[in-house]
Amino acid sequence: MLIIETKRAPNPRRVTIFLAEKGIDVPREERDLMTGDLRLDDFSAVNPWQRVPVLVLDDGTAISESVAICRYFEELQPEPPLFGTGAVGKAEVEMWNRRVELGLLAAVASVFRHLHPRMAHLEVPQVTPWGEANKEKVEAELTKLDRRLAESPFIAGPEYSIADITALVAIDFMKPAKLAAPDGHANVMRWYREVAARPSASA
Amino acid sequence: MLIIETKRAPNPRRVTIFLAEKGIDVPREERDLMTGDLRLDDFSAVNPWQRVPVLVLDDGTAISESVAICRYFEELQPEPPLFGTGAVGKAEVEMWNRRVELGLLAAVASVFRHLHPRMAHLEVPQVTPWGEANKEKVEAELTKLDRRLAESPFIAGPEYSIADITALVAIDFMKPAKLAAPDGHANVMRWYREVAARPSASA
Repeated sequence: MLIIETKRAPNPRRVTIFLAEKGIDVPREERDLMTGDLRLDDFSAVNPWQRVPVLVLDDGTAISESVAICRYFEELQPEPPLFGTGAVGKAEVEMWNRRVELGLLAAVASVFRHLHPRMAHLEVPQVTPWGEANKEKVEAELTKLDRRLAESPFIAGPEYSIADITALVAIDFMKPAKLAAPDGHANVMRWYREVAARPSASA
Repeated sequence: MLIIETKRAPNPRRVTIFLAEKGIDVPREERDLMTGDLRLDDFSAVNPWQRVPVLVLDDGTAISESVAICRYFEELQPEPPLFGTGAVGKAEVEMWNRRVELGLLAAVASVFRHLHPRMAHLEVPQVTPWGEANKEKVEAELTKLDRRLAESPFIAGPEYSIADITALVAIDFMKPAKLAAPDGHANVMRWYREVAARPSASA
């Protein structure tokens, strides 16, 4: 079993934190997505979508998409549960993880991909006004999350879950995207200090 | 139990097809997202993200995000399995559903949201060059799916799954997005004819 990743990129970090919370260790192979390594034929054969991370099983089966990799390990080792428990609990974690991923994380990533000069060779075409429009989306998403975190200890409810991992990674991704830290959102900051202090956050 | 939806919109249709495959009937309440109904205070209280569909349980718990709603029903009634079986099978369905959703469906939706005049009051700002850039992304995603469907009967493997539902809805969404049908992709068309002929597709 092997995980192919770009260690400093946001999506591989989601899997790294998830596995640290589970206490599972998996060998890693580094590929730098910024240099175009993921477009080489040998990697495209593993993941035609040319993204990291990819989990390669011993029989050669390749699982890409961070959440799919996490779900595989949740099935192998359910404790501690990071996708929720029971029908309602699992649906709520799925809902919150998607709200954060399709909302905050997607908006921060769009700012980075469409405005950062180093992404010009990977995001073709870079669409500057789309990057700018996403700055407002980031703020709107933080405002909604702040309301949520005024009433809930973690994003999806009383327990830490994969939704917290996605949100932590999204907020840390704001710095390379050249977005100011969300200091004005007091509840987000309270939650952020707690999840960033967990050992998994620096795994 | 109640589902709030806009019947003709793509995401509510994903849930409709999913429930038809399961043989589950749930009462519906119509809200027209095109008129701005989802921004009204009473609906924003149910879903602060102002999207449909939303599943409201008898105790008032509101589950939004199509895939979260589907996952709730998969837990309640596992047969027929539409999220895969076993650790590898579940991971593969998650991977393929995400590839289709974040790839083809997101690209078609971006064309619709950023280029269609009727979306000008909902997608603010509409970014025309971003809509145009997504036309190329639609074609690139179809090309990858065509390669996949040359070697697999369904998107995620030998069995019909939620990934097929997402892809069917994405392709049918191409028409309102004013994109030409994917006639040049023979394997996609073979698969499309099969899944579109299932009774669930016209539920």
